[in-house]
Amino acid sequence: MSEPVSGTVGVAVVGAGFMGGVHAAVLTEDPRARVRWIVDLDERAGGQLAAQMDARATTRLSEALADDEVRLVVVSTPVTTHHPVALEAIAAGRHVLVEKPLVMRPDHARELVAAAKAKGVLLGFGGNFVHAPKFRRAKELVADRTALGTLHAVRVVYRTSGPDSEWPRNRALAGGGACTDIGWHAIELCSWLLGEPRIEAVTAATQNITGVGDVEEQGVMLLHFEGGAVGQCDVSWLCPGGEQLTVEVLGTEGRVSVDFWQGMGITAFTTNKFAEVWEPNQGWAFPEWEWIRNSGYVQQDRSFVDAIVNGEPLGRAADSAIPIVSALDAVYRSAAEGRKIEIHD
Amino acid sequence: MSEPVSGTVGVAVVGAGFMGGVHAAVLTEDPRARVRWIVDLDERAGGQLAAQMDARATTRLSEALADDEVRLVVVSTPVTTHHPVALEAIAAGRHVLVEKPLVMRPDHARELVAAAKAKGVLLGFGGNFVHAPKFRRAKELVADRTALGTLHAVRVVYRTSGPDSEWPRNRALAGGGACTDIGWHAIELCSWLLGEPRIEAVTAATQNITGVGDVEEQGVMLLHFEGGAVGQCDVSWLCPGGEQLTVEVLGTEGRVSVDFWQGMGITAFTTNKFAEVWEPNQGWAFPEWEWIRNSGYVQQDRSFVDAIVNGEPLGRAADSAIPIVSALDAVYRSAAEGRKIEIHD
Amino acid sequence: MSEPVSGTVGVAVVGAGFMGGVHAAVLTEDPRARVRWIVDLDERAGGQLAAQMDARATTRLSEALADDEVRLVVVSTPVTTHHPVALEAIAAGRHVLVEKPLVMRPDHARELVAAAKAKGVLLGFGGNFVHAPKFRRAKELVADRTALGTLHAVRVVYRTSGPDSEWPRNRALAGGGACTDIGWHAIELCSWLLGEPRIEAVTAATQNITGVGDVEEQGVMLLHFEGGAVGQCDVSWLCPGGEQLTVEVLGTEGRVSVDFWQGMGITAFTTNKFAEVWEPNQGWAFPEWEWIRNSGYVQQDRSFVDAIVNGEPLGRAADSAIPIVSALDAVYRSAAEGRKIEIHD
Amino acid sequence: MSEPVSGTVGVAVVGAGFMGGVHAAVLTEDPRARVRWIVDLDERAGGQLAAQMDARATTRLSEALADDEVRLVVVSTPVTTHHPVALEAIAAGRHVLVEKPLVMRPDHARELVAAAKAKGVLLGFGGNFVHAPKFRRAKELVADRTALGTLHAVRVVYRTSGPDSEWPRNRALAGGGACTDIGWHAIELCSWLLGEPRIEAVTAATQNITGVGDVEEQGVMLLHFEGGAVGQCDVSWLCPGGEQLTVEVLGTEGRVSVDFWQGMGITAFTTNKFAEVWEPNQGWAFPEWEWIRNSGYVQQDRSFVDAIVNGEPLGRAADSAIPIVSALDAVYRSAAEGRKIEIHD
Repeated sequence: MSEPVSGTVGVAVVGAGFMGGVHAAVLTEDPRARVRWIVDLDERAGGQLAAQMDARATTRLSEALADDEVRLVVVSTPVTTHHPVALEAIAAGRHVLVEKPLVMRPDHARELVAAAKAKGVLLGFGGNFVHAPKFRRAKELVADRTALGTLHAVRVVYRTSGPDSEWPRNRALAGGGACTDIGWHAIELCSWLLGEPRIEAVTAATQNITGVGDVEEQGVMLLHFEGGAVGQCDVSWLCPGGEQLTVEVLGTEGRVSVDFWQGMGITAFTTNKFAEVWEPNQGWAFPEWEWIRNSGYVQQDRSFVDAIVNGEPLGRAADSAIPIVSALDAVYRSAAEGRKIEIHD
Repeated sequence: MSEPVSGTVGVAVVGAGFMGGVHAAVLTEDPRARVRWIVDLDERAGGQLAAQMDARATTRLSEALADDEVRLVVVSTPVTTHHPVALEAIAAGRHVLVEKPLVMRPDHARELVAAAKAKGVLLGFGGNFVHAPKFRRAKELVADRTALGTLHAVRVVYRTSGPDSEWPRNRALAGGGACTDIGWHAIELCSWLLGEPRIEAVTAATQNITGVGDVEEQGVMLLHFEGGAVGQCDVSWLCPGGEQLTVEVLGTEGRVSVDFWQGMGITAFTTNKFAEVWEPNQGWAFPEWEWIRNSGYVQQDRSFVDAIVNGEPLGRAADSAIPIVSALDAVYRSAAEGRKIEIHD
Repeated sequence: MSEPVSGTVGVAVVGAGFMGGVHAAVLTEDPRARVRWIVDLDERAGGQLAAQMDARATTRLSEALADDEVRLVVVSTPVTTHHPVALEAIAAGRHVLVEKPLVMRPDHARELVAAAKAKGVLLGFGGNFVHAPKFRRAKELVADRTALGTLHAVRVVYRTSGPDSEWPRNRALAGGGACTDIGWHAIELCSWLLGEPRIEAVTAATQNITGVGDVEEQGVMLLHFEGGAVGQCDVSWLCPGGEQLTVEVLGTEGRVSVDFWQGMGITAFTTNKFAEVWEPNQGWAFPEWEWIRNSGYVQQDRSFVDAIVNGEPLGRAADSAIPIVSALDAVYRSAAEGRKIEIHD
Repeated sequence: MSEPVSGTVGVAVVGAGFMGGVHAAVLTEDPRARVRWIVDLDERAGGQLAAQMDARATTRLSEALADDEVRLVVVSTPVTTHHPVALEAIAAGRHVLVEKPLVMRPDHARELVAAAKAKGVLLGFGGNFVHAPKFRRAKELVADRTALGTLHAVRVVYRTSGPDSEWPRNRALAGGGACTDIGWHAIELCSWLLGEPRIEAVTAATQNITGVGDVEEQGVMLLHFEGGAVGQCDVSWLCPGGEQLTVEVLGTEGRVSVDFWQGMGITAFTTNKFAEVWEPNQGWAFPEWEWIRNSGYVQQDRSFVDAIVNGEPLGRAADSAIPIVSALDAVYRSAAEGRKIEIHD
């Protein structure tokens, strides 16, 4: 273990919402990084997070980019702003970590990747679960072809009781609904677990059941992979009873299943209420712990600092995001047109 | 409990395969029924089953239908023969129980239902799981709308390691593959749990991964129900590790999940092998018991005898099968054409 | 299946409480039996149950015993009355089924068994779980010595949130507390699963935590079996969150575990409340179904009618209860004296 | 996070066996520590581990203690040598971490604690599970008395398929068998989860089933805590099917259960064999990951380095071990004498 050099990587976090807060906290705990700026149009939100992180707040990205110490820009703004914000940061020669989904349009994804390459900066994206220890262990098992035989299907079920804030239900800000918000993870996990074969086509269907917002609340997405394997993603914001994330990989000779949240190994019951447990915290509960580390956020953000400090290539660079953007784009077209959409890039 | 009249319902079982044997055994144990004939083109198979049941064997259905004591004909032949065999039995004025899938074509389903109505005979079909105690209990829970709110999604996962005999892999005999063999149950469970709303459209995709046989080995079927709920069926013959049948019903305020086979409550481990356990019987195993009763076969067949003896309407008559036949027909068209197929009847 | 003779076995149920009601209902559904009398000192309770069963009520056992049609007496009174009530019924030449625990004293158990033998009547006892399909399947697995090797330990955990009525907390009526009420089942399951080797000694400890009643609310009982195997019984009335009954059998080469109540395979969640689910019925729930049949009551009572009707020996006659009575007696002595108690009979 | 000072804590690891290797690896990864010596009577084993850690090997503890840079001595030798080795290291003014069980005799435990206090050095002991994130989370939940009410029972089941090396089956080296090897953890977890009330008495029974070795292979230990709560420890070396560690804490109003190894959330099946999974790795498996961190070894050893570097008191100092040593001592007396043993210190 080489000795860390303190605070060499200056960070600007753009977007002071929930995920901006997670990244700021994770990077603050890394002795090699230092959060210098919180950028948010909402002065109060930006100011509060900046105060917690001992950083400065601004409403203008350009002000943070004028700071030579800033080497990494974390983009955790509403989805439809990812493209221009990331482009500006890349143009200013900064490494960029964009929260998922990278962008909504395949041409935007390719443009960002090309821009980063031209500038020689790192461009990564938020896909925390592929950094989570439990899924990394699952991937090792999946790689054992003697045990599993030929892989032919992956199913990801990801269900929540909906977003905590309002903007993810607003297409103008969020780009899409459940398929974008949590479906991104589902598509990425399918692809990553299978070894990232090309996604040749997509068949999808989406629904908005409650009429709240203008985006889909649930979706089913079939990913047709080169070689014949199928990815099945079932995502929903309409799931009471606690977040559910389960993944199954099927091979001709074996299978691997992951229960991410309820498979933590603690169950608890009270006739009253647990003070410090996520919903549900009445009756039977399945308490989590160290959720930021267990979800891979620490590992993901540190891998970015590693790459900057050590000059090595980024493990999950934005190139890996292009097929996911294309797939998500095809998801929405398939759902709208009621037919299988081929992907040609 | 009214007193049973011994052996008043004479039965002819057509098809001496696995399911023919199950029905013959179940009906033999019912004191109000008596298996009189086993009909099979294969004289040896028919003769063996007939000997076990103390019945007569024949290769010609007409011989059994000439027996006035025969009041119920059970059709458990390969799928593509269901239509003519059932028609012949109906024409002869017998009650008919057809193993699932009733038939492959919607027009055949309607024709059989109309013929039975015209003759005034009962026409039922094999959908044992809707008679199984565990699923009946689940349906009661699902019916509690105070607990579940608005139902918006049902998912059925049904996976096996493939059929035991060869004919289900042969389209000429079986009509279709996994979507027909086990997908029938999945479609029926989705529809029945939701209260049988109309299936407006289907989106599906199917695959044959190993190249064995000329039918699909797995399929994903999305059922678009009137009112907006979605049914998701994931069926596969490529699942090592023991049969898996899990059902989830999601409402806006609650959910119900059923694990049919692994949720029996017995787990067992051996460093050797369990003599009397289904696969897997080495290492960790999840032993079943009373599987015929637990699977609803006893209840299903007895409900038929009840209807005949008591003159009451059949709980699950073939009318309930028509939407399933139409959905299954749409499944195959959707998978072939790569688009959502609307159902107009 | 021989043809049942309707209502040949007249039954008197003594004790109109919860279990009296279960036995009356079960026997009423058996076409070969007929409940003729409900005997209870409480006229109102007896009258109500009798009305439901279309039977007569009396406060005096002698009145029921004067009815020649009564061939079976079911004793489901408070525990300390089991001995005199059963003796009276035996003396009157009736077959007797005594709810568990048979009696509290080993000499009483031996006296009853001898009396029944002298009179030539059947004497059985309530041990429903050894008749339950799930445990019978477990016993078959345990009998597979190739899979399990040498059996050396059985653990039974049986926990409830306490009895529904008041008398089980009153030593004068109940004989003992949790070790008697549910510990009886635990001891019986340990012994039965191991093949009923002699119980050589017992080490136990009991507690009353809340101060309610004058009997123990929980207990830990170690059963030292001939041959070296150990039975471990953990019983408690202080378990919120729903009844728990789990059994583990360990062998040198394998093991078998049974989860009786939560291992049913249905889970359900509501943000409100399920109307027809046992506690807990808010939040996450684990609904049961057909609990009377699943718990073995139907099979147990029918095995009694089978024995009477067919003249065959009773599967679980009261002889099997003697070691359990002795063990339970030793449990209380061990808990009181703080030492291992040897059993010499 | 204060900046670590590199390699300031020199370490001597005494005992080059499995646990010596774990501690050496964990401390090597901590930038504030440096393993300087491996001490082992077996020159080959010591030399191999030293080579891996870039440390020196010796067969004499005195040689390592002559090195002024050594500030921490880790004692992971066979149990019966813990007392003299730890005393020698304390006498030399070194901080000492003794692998569990601290020692076998209560007077030895008190002597070590007094010696460390007199010398002003830290004395800790290996109880990794109380440092494991999953159990720490469970302890937080248990501390929520609004949710749990009055705690009255803790049950720990810890079962393995036996030790990997031979010395734990030899009383002269190991002090005891399963109750010492894994029972130590069980007793510690019971006590720690309840908030370390005094253990007033112990009732225990132990068995050696296979005849291998001269120590017990399984044991049941009842801990009678001040205030009335009961601890129940069920430990066994005779458990095929993979390590099992489950903990249940019962309160009057709620309960918390922890499944340590099978509750990881990954299940896997193969018709062949998983290359990189612990036993069982055929059929169904429950793969672990990051087991050293998940088991608390990293956190435990780092807490020691924290205390040394920061001069703060040790979280789990050897004082906490005295009641466990006394309880374990009482376990063996209770098992031998067949009676409850009171603890008076």
